[in-house]
Amino acid sequence: MIRTLFCLIVILFIVNCEQVIVDEHGIFELKNGTDNHKYHELTEILRKISILRGINAVLEWDQQVMMPTKGSGARAEHLAEISGILHERETDPKIGELLTSLESELHTLDAYEAANVKLTRKDYDRKTKLSKDLAEKRAKLSSEGFNTWVEARKTNNFEMFAPILTQWVALQKEIANLIDPSRDAYDVLLDDYEPGTSGQEIDNIFSQLKTELIPLVAAVRRSNSQVDDSTLLEQVYSTKTQEELSRKIASEVVGFDFSKGRLDSSAHPFSLGVDTDDVRITTRLRNNSLLSGLRCTVHEAGHALYEVNLNKKYKGQTVQRYIGVAIHESQSLFWERHILMGTHFWDKWYPHIKDLFGLKASKEIMFKSVNKVNFDNLIRVEADELTYPLHVILRFEIERELFNGTINVNELPKIWGERMEKYLGIKPSNDSNGVLQDVHWGSGYFGYFPTYTLGALYAAQIAAHPTISGWVRENDYNSIINWLRDNVHSKGSVTMTSEQLIKDATGEKLNPSYFINHLRSKYKSIYDLE
Amino acid sequence: MIRTLFCLIVILFIVNCEQVIVDEHGIFELKNGTDNHKYHELTEILRKISILRGINAVLEWDQQVMMPTKGSGARAEHLAEISGILHERETDPKIGELLTSLESELHTLDAYEAANVKLTRKDYDRKTKLSKDLAEKRAKLSSEGFNTWVEARKTNNFEMFAPILTQWVALQKEIANLIDPSRDAYDVLLDDYEPGTSGQEIDNIFSQLKTELIPLVAAVRRSNSQVDDSTLLEQVYSTKTQEELSRKIASEVVGFDFSKGRLDSSAHPFSLGVDTDDVRITTRLRNNSLLSGLRCTVHEAGHALYEVNLNKKYKGQTVQRYIGVAIHESQSLFWERHILMGTHFWDKWYPHIKDLFGLKASKEIMFKSVNKVNFDNLIRVEADELTYPLHVILRFEIERELFNGTINVNELPKIWGERMEKYLGIKPSNDSNGVLQDVHWGSGYFGYFPTYTLGALYAAQIAAHPTISGWVRENDYNSIINWLRDNVHSKGSVTMTSEQLIKDATGEKLNPSYFINHLRSKYKSIYDLE
Repeated sequence: MIRTLFCLIVILFIVNCEQVIVDEHGIFELKNGTDNHKYHELTEILRKISILRGINAVLEWDQQVMMPTKGSGARAEHLAEISGILHERETDPKIGELLTSLESELHTLDAYEAANVKLTRKDYDRKTKLSKDLAEKRAKLSSEGFNTWVEARKTNNFEMFAPILTQWVALQKEIANLIDPSRDAYDVLLDDYEPGTSGQEIDNIFSQLKTELIPLVAAVRRSNSQVDDSTLLEQVYSTKTQEELSRKIASEVVGFDFSKGRLDSSAHPFSLGVDTDDVRITTRLRNNSLLSGLRCTVHEAGHALYEVNLNKKYKGQTVQRYIGVAIHESQSLFWERHILMGTHFWDKWYPHIKDLFGLKASKEIMFKSVNKVNFDNLIRVEADELTYPLHVILRFEIERELFNGTINVNELPKIWGERMEKYLGIKPSNDSNGVLQDVHWGSGYFGYFPTYTLGALYAAQIAAHPTISGWVRENDYNSIINWLRDNVHSKGSVTMTSEQLIKDATGEKLNPSYFINHLRSKYKSIYDLE
Repeated sequence: MIRTLFCLIVILFIVNCEQVIVDEHGIFELKNGTDNHKYHELTEILRKISILRGINAVLEWDQQVMMPTKGSGARAEHLAEISGILHERETDPKIGELLTSLESELHTLDAYEAANVKLTRKDYDRKTKLSKDLAEKRAKLSSEGFNTWVEARKTNNFEMFAPILTQWVALQKEIANLIDPSRDAYDVLLDDYEPGTSGQEIDNIFSQLKTELIPLVAAVRRSNSQVDDSTLLEQVYSTKTQEELSRKIASEVVGFDFSKGRLDSSAHPFSLGVDTDDVRITTRLRNNSLLSGLRCTVHEAGHALYEVNLNKKYKGQTVQRYIGVAIHESQSLFWERHILMGTHFWDKWYPHIKDLFGLKASKEIMFKSVNKVNFDNLIRVEADELTYPLHVILRFEIERELFNGTINVNELPKIWGERMEKYLGIKPSNDSNGVLQDVHWGSGYFGYFPTYTLGALYAAQIAAHPTISGWVRENDYNSIINWLRDNVHSKGSVTMTSEQLIKDATGEKLNPSYFINHLRSKYKSIYDLE
């Protein structure tokens, strides 16, 4: 009530006629080709659902960035309430009826509209095929699993975590079987993150990577010209100045529009879309590390660019949504790895950054440092571009084997150690920096890991596209932004699969050789390999 | 979706098991005396409604403090969606049924429970007695009226605004008549802001004030010892240092707990309660004015203290809510006027503030300046403690006369000028700084103005209480905070009227002589009157 009272005063005192005007006219009218009233009935239901998702986004952003610590109890109630209302609307039988009748009229719809119906069906089935019991069982295991994982990692106790893992594999198999009994359970899970792919396809790609990367990592390790970043590390970099630089680069390089978003700090950087006109990112700045902050900012700004450029014509519609986690990751990795971590960026930006901080490190050192390989690193999230895929491949292989039953949970610590040694030449000293290091499995996310590396592959293929690589050389960021908007972002999910999207955009289906060549040529030059 | 995706990662990576645990156990269990299951059915409905209000509060706070400008369109949709869901739940016929059956069993409930039923009935009737048409008519006029007011004030065009005012008076009479045909329309409107009072009662009080204040203002104006604050005004005060001071004083004086709230900046300072454990205030700091920022901070922190101390036992219940706008204002004015603007505060804090800014002004000048009377000020929101009530009385009288038909809208500019001259000895040069200066009427808020001055009266009566005045002299803020919590904040609305609350708290019904004596003695000493 008090908020009503004071916000009344605030809302009225504040010059926000805009708010009022928007309130009257701002609600987006879909202008679709079809005059099928059932279709428009469906889009209106979807639009309303997307408004609730936007509300949820504000609550989650506030929770991570602004909320006072003791507000967490009330916030948990806010989020539970919204997700209750959301679930009710997302599983509304009316959606099912409309879909059924529209599915017989798909030929009357244009490509976006037809995709909208098909994608909504997919969402609707995944939500409604689960019994209330099963959904609750999953929710319960998800929070229990997360808490157990936190405790197990803290106390380096895999035995504590093993039963959770066993339950998850069983439960996810059960769920996958309900969603699509005709496919492998693991493939059904993958579909949530990379639509249209399969474990086998990914395995084919990852096998090529392994064959190339394991010797490359070994060669880099043996190299006599290791990167010396001591001049960089001995300096202190004011976080205030880093923030200014972050804002400048987010806006001048990645085109982050501060009238449509915010950049704040948080312990764990993330990007979050409230709306295409309100996309917020966070970064993490430390005064002993200039490059990690820059990488965070550019990475999240890359994600944000995708959200800002989603096709407004399909606002709130399933087809407007990004095509998958892997492609989303490719948009952040493109800017982080192919722009920020490339030589051309440093040609352009080095003088400014040098002035800003009185940099001691040379331009060459900056470029080499941001690409430096850390051979002794056991932790995926801290891995460099070269070793990261091997961390991912190890997890992907273990997930598949768990689901097809060729290994069992208790063997994981042993298998983890052996493969780390085989792939990266290092062995974890304990399970906390080994099999227990990632949050995903405790919360039931299986099939998510591959997307980190698939994203890297997509990014490399886009960067290798002749048109793009020219713009990268010229630091012509605007042309890149426009190309990405037209060929990736604005497409939403109309292609139904990432494979089709990348084919339309680059003229070729996903081809790992672009990523491999990118790594080979870059690390050959940095580490002076023959 | 992207937010789901990234917040998934965020929520999981962030150490917020707390969030999860709270999610499981944090939902507040009402422990009421009665075992009446209908009563608990009602309280559960109310608790759910209060969660939605909390969500609405986060959206409004974000809109005012954090949201990027172009996010306003989506935010308007978020707020419209939530208010739609809220309206649906607040007018749920189930509430009516439960109330009807509980009203026959009031004797089985304790005082808080009985008040909870009565207050919920009051809310429910006020929401359900309006037809959908009438509610929409009001909403439409409210936004049209606000926009017209903005334009009219900008262009100094009262004729443009007059029709809105005429429509509002007619509409509010119609609404008041539906709510309670047995009472004067204006009294029904007053009841929204100061429950249990009447225009006649307020008029009796305000008449005494007028009789005392008009000559007092005149005497101060004639005084030969005017306040010279030039040494204060010639300095520049870093807003960063002001912010530190604001935080220190909010927490060490008013007891603002930063684990349960935030202090930010906004163009128009406000206080907003998301939950008793998440109460947020904003302030406005300008480097050319040290005192106005301090006053904003302390004022809003006073409001926040009320919200934080509301009785958790009745979380989400109607009876937990503050008793009225006037009492709420008294809690902010108590800290602003009787602590910050008093001599004892400066005895304790002057040395620290002097060091912080290298103050040139003496302690005496600081005290006099914060209380300085600005005779030529035509604007209510910029008025000092002494002249403010006369601005309010003028508006209150005009409102009453508009509603009982003794004046009509077109006369307002003339009447405004005459009374400003009579009460304050100044005349507006145009309508923009006269009758068009306030936001309230354009948006249909009639009966709100008196609460500013009633709040000042309540604050003065509390400050004059022997126990309190002793603590004020000793700067014993904690004892004051505890007393206010036990005698005002935690009472919520159990007393049903502000009159009963102040009587229980101070042993006497509202008595304007405390306020009058406070002003007389303070301004006699500052302006050296005989």
